[in-house]
Order: sequence, then structure tokens, then C-alpha cells
Amino acid sequence: MRVLNLDLGKKSYPIYIGQDLLSQSELLTQHITGKQVMIVTNTTVAPLYLEQVKSLLSVFTVAEVILPDGEQYKTLDTVNLIFDALLENRFDRSCTLVALGGGVVGDMTGFAASSYQRGVNFIQIPTTLLSQVDSSVGGKTGVNHSLGKNMIGAFYQPKCVLIDVDTLNTLDDRQYSAGMAEVIKYGLLGNVDFLEFLQENIVQLMARDQDLIIQSVYQSCTDKANIVAQDELESGKRALLNLGHTFGHAIENTLGYGVFLHGEAISVGMLMAAKLSYLLGDLSESDVRQVKDLLEKANLPIHVDGKISASEFLSAMSVDKKVIDGNIRLILMSKLGESYISDVYQKEQLDQVIGDFC
Amino acid sequence: MRVLNLDLGKKSYPIYIGQDLLSQSELLTQHITGKQVMIVTNTTVAPLYLEQVKSLLSVFTVAEVILPDGEQYKTLDTVNLIFDALLENRFDRSCTLVALGGGVVGDMTGFAASSYQRGVNFIQIPTTLLSQVDSSVGGKTGVNHSLGKNMIGAFYQPKCVLIDVDTLNTLDDRQYSAGMAEVIKYGLLGNVDFLEFLQENIVQLMARDQDLIIQSVYQSCTDKANIVAQDELESGKRALLNLGHTFGHAIENTLGYGVFLHGEAISVGMLMAAKLSYLLGDLSESDVRQVKDLLEKANLPIHVDGKISASEFLSAMSVDKKVIDGNIRLILMSKLGESYISDVYQKEQLDQVIGDFC
Repeated sequence: MRVLNLDLGKKSYPIYIGQDLLSQSELLTQHITGKQVMIVTNTTVAPLYLEQVKSLLSVFTVAEVILPDGEQYKTLDTVNLIFDALLENRFDRSCTLVALGGGVVGDMTGFAASSYQRGVNFIQIPTTLLSQVDSSVGGKTGVNHSLGKNMIGAFYQPKCVLIDVDTLNTLDDRQYSAGMAEVIKYGLLGNVDFLEFLQENIVQLMARDQDLIIQSVYQSCTDKANIVAQDELESGKRALLNLGHTFGHAIENTLGYGVFLHGEAISVGMLMAAKLSYLLGDLSESDVRQVKDLLEKANLPIHVDGKISASEFLSAMSVDKKVIDGNIRLILMSKLGESYISDVYQKEQLDQVIGDFC
Repeated sequence: MRVLNLDLGKKSYPIYIGQDLLSQSELLTQHITGKQVMIVTNTTVAPLYLEQVKSLLSVFTVAEVILPDGEQYKTLDTVNLIFDALLENRFDRSCTLVALGGGVVGDMTGFAASSYQRGVNFIQIPTTLLSQVDSSVGGKTGVNHSLGKNMIGAFYQPKCVLIDVDTLNTLDDRQYSAGMAEVIKYGLLGNVDFLEFLQENIVQLMARDQDLIIQSVYQSCTDKANIVAQDELESGKRALLNLGHTFGHAIENTLGYGVFLHGEAISVGMLMAAKLSYLLGDLSESDVRQVKDLLEKANLPIHVDGKISASEFLSAMSVDKKVIDGNIRLILMSKLGESYISDVYQKEQLDQVIGDFC
């Protein structure tokens, strides 16, 4: 097992990464305060891992809430099901919430924990590649609104993150690829060594080589933890983690949640960011091709297949939350493995990129 | 005008208290960042003060959302109306929310501000006595759930609180009395001098003597600011501010919101706390009578008139959020003007108090 520490002063917490962690009771129980534990999971994950996690918690009063599975359920109404369960079981403010599932479960459980009785403890047990390398680390929690993704939420840190890579054995190939998009993101946004590692090993990674997976998850979490420790509330550098996300959110919002998985939309979004960076003269044609090749080898989409018009795309982008006073700020690449935040580009260049991908 | 500072380090903010403050543009505008301002108010307050506040904000892009009036609307669904308005107007994360109204408007606006795009600026302009002396100060925000009051929310501090006591001129007598319950609370829980001031001046206060009102609002906010500065997240002393509230919430939850106003329920709750303190030997019969007299002179209720059975009352109390691992903790009085947190009492004593008031 490897242990990373996310350094946030009093709010610091460990991230455990390894195999067979869901059989080690004390890893989990040392971070539980109070006597009451609510496990929040979904209809897909519950049959696979709920009993195993419950068996670690025999000394506590344990209840569970099983949510419907899918990004389309990441809403205030679904979070309210968690509040219902907490109140029906008379859980008090000393209770602990455990998120067992992917990013949607983690984001909603974290938001419920941040706002139940104005804040209770919570623990992340991410079971998808995407949530293991991204959403479970860093304290971004929340839900979608019909007019925008992740528009409602809180910054709220867990007590620990428990990443058992064995849970990836039950993850289907499409979800695995979607997670790989976020892994690739860390290489592209600020770690050229990791990018080269991924380019070298992408075939074996897609064949689910366990050691390479652990290395990749560990490096992704390390890069994320470093950035979050410097800028918890995203007033600066943390925004780099949104590489591809303004484009990607526009895809998800326009098509409706579930048509593209989040990681799939981010894949297209990262390539769009690369293309805009090429038009700005920062990336070469070969750089853009390398990005495209890597995404394709990870079985990720690289365009939206005519499903969205250019005007719809632009309109959806402008409600994204990274818009400050009306200008669309984007994460762009100065070179492979290096990115920056900018709204310095020509409207025509953005239009050309959107036109190319729609 | 008097200015108080609530000292919370980087989150410190001023509380302005005086007359005619809603005509002073710079008081408000100096605390606004960004260009977009959303005023959140309700159907009662909008016709009275909305245009006046908008006239102070002519240099900004201003939009408004007018909510239904009443504690029964203090729900997640109503908060969602604020999110709808923010997103329909494409407000970004640099926007400012202004709460213009009583405690319900302030609590919901604060919660919306805490969770819109994971946190935007907000400003409190409380227009009722209750919100001026209590809910607008200290950063408790949130909504009710059908199974419990204030069960969902966040600690989230405003950038300033603007208390124009002139707005009390449009407050009806019942609401004014309900606010006076919270004023009296500060005397009872920790300020015997203020308690004596209120006992001496209650008749003129109920006759709306403006100077006495300003003194009372200032003293109430001072006492609250001191307690909040010592314990923002209610891990200790701040709980004293809940004097009468566990009893009071049980009344509100059981009867449904609106039958008793919040301050009215707290009035009964404080007298119940006094009665239990008497049974514990801490207050004398004369002390309890003094509490009762003061509440009666403020035209506040002192019992629940047979509307709730004792068993309903006890059941409603045990879901209150001040319950830790199953024991009901209460705020009790060691003497007039001094209170403490305790779960040390006989169940029979609590039963007797509940029986006396039901």
C-alpha cells in the first residue's frame, strides 16, 4: 500500500492506494468519529461491495442509502434522498458518511456531508478509475443543475480516501477508458515525464496491467494533491485541473448527461484545447497528433460526431462557471506537459475549433 | 450609525447598525465584488424596499428573485429558485447575492451563496427584528427538512450586515414580539445587565422607542458577535445561543411551520428551560416568574395551549441536531443571566416540564 498526504493544514488527510484494502478494517475505522455510519452507494456498486464494506464496520450503527446510478441523477433531489435516510435513521451531527462508488456518488455524498446539520464527517471509497484519480481527491463536491454542470456544491474535504484498485476489476471497459482521460489530463497539464510514461505504456494500461495501474493512480493523485494543497479553493493554479472541462461540460450539458461519459467529454475537450493552442502557435501539428493518438489508444472519442451545432456549443460554454464577468477563460497548453489559464485568443479561433469538432 | 466588527480572522466583517442606512450607497457597494448582483427577497418585503436597494446599485448588473414569504417555504426547493435565477441570468462565480428580508430570506440566500458554484459573495440586509439581532449575524445558513428544522445548511459568513432599524417601521406587532424573544434570549443566556435593562424598558421597547431599539439591537449583535468569534462552528460555547431552541424546534416541527412564529416557539422554549432549571434547583420560583413576566410583557406566548401531546413533543425533540449519540443536550440556566450546556437531568424532570407546557 502507498500512502499520500494531502496537505491542507488542519484539514489534511491521507490517501491510501493499493490492493486488497477493503479487507483492512482499521484503515477505515480509524477515521470514523461518532457511532453512526451511513454508507452511500448506488444500484451498480451495492451488489459488488456494500456487504464487504459493512463487514468492516461491525462495531458501528450502520445504515445505507442506495441511489440510482448515472450522471443524470446527480441532482439536488437525489441528495435529498441522503438527507431523508439520515433523518429517518435519526443520525446526529457526530455521524460519518461513507461514499462508496464513482464520482457521482462521491460528489453527492460529499455535498450531503457538507450540508447535513451544517457539516458532518465523510470518507471517500472510490470504485471507478475516474473517481480514484480525480473526483475523490481535493474536496470538490456538488450536483448538476439543468442549466449547468456542478453549479451547486461546496469545497468540503474528506477524512481519508481509500483507493482499492481491485475494485477496477468490476469496471467495464468504457468506464475504464473514461477514467483514463483524467489520467492523461495530469500528463498534459503539467507533467511531461508522466505524459511520456503514459505514451509508452498505454497499451499495457488498457490491458489492465495492475502494477502500471497502481503507478498511474499514485502519480495522478500525487499531482492532484500537490495542486490542491497550493490552491484549495481554486483561486488560481487549481483551475489547471479543468483542462478540457469547459469544452467537455458544454458537450455534456448540450447532449444531456449520459450520452457522453464525463471522461469521454473531457477527452474531446482536451483535444479541442490542444487544437486552440495549435492555432495560437503554442503547439505544433505533431503535438496535437500525439494528444489525439494517446486518446485514441485509450479508446476515447475525439469529436462529437455532428450531434451538436456550433452555436449550441458556444452558448453552453458561456454558462460554465469558469466564466468571469462574461469572458470565457480556458485552460490552454503552452507545450506538451505545460498549461496555463487564459482568455487571450481571437473569437474566430475559438469558433474555428468548435466548427472543426461539431 | 454604530459599527461592530465580527472578528473571524480573514472572514471578519462589519455589522452596521443605525437609521437611514438604506440611502447610503457606499455602505453597500464597498462590499460588492464583481459586476453582477442578485437581490433575494420575498413577496412581503419586495414592495417595501426592493426599489430602494436597487437604486443604490445602479453601477451593477442587478437582477432579483422574489420568493414566497413564510417559514414553510424555507426548503431546498425554494433555494433552487435562487439557483434558477442565477443561472438564467448567467451569473458567474464573481457575483454577489444580497439577502433583503427576514431570517428565512437570509438563511436561504446564505445557503444559496455558500453552494452556488461552490461559494460566492453575499451581504445581509435584515428587515425584521429577529433577523437583525440573530440570524443575519454569525453565518448560520440553511433550510428545513420535513423531518427537522435547519437540518440542511452551511456555516458561511457574509461580507457585511446592514441593519437599518427604520425597516422595523413596517414590521407588524406579532413579528416584532417574535424578534423581541431573541433579544431577551441574550439577557437570559449570558448578560444579566442587559436582562435588567430589558426588564426596566420593556414597555417603552414594545412602544417602539427608537433609541431603545438601537441600543437593544446593538447589544444583541455585540453579544452574538462575541460568542461567534470564540466558536464559529459551534463546537462549544456557541451552543448557548440555542437557549430555548431544542424545545422551540420541537414545537415548530410538530405544529408545522407558521402556526407559531420562530420567536414565539423560542419564547415557550426559554420558559421551559427556566422551568427545568428550577426543577434542578438552579433557578428560584421568583426567577422563573421574572422570565415569564418579561415574555408576557413582550406579548409572547408562554405555553402551547394543548396543541401538542407530551409524547409528540419528546419525539420531536430527539431529532433536533443538538442530540449527540442519542442523549438530548439542552441549554439550561445556572442563574438569571447565565447558562450552560448539559444533559445532566432526570428523564422524569424533562417529562414533568413537557407535561406542564403541553
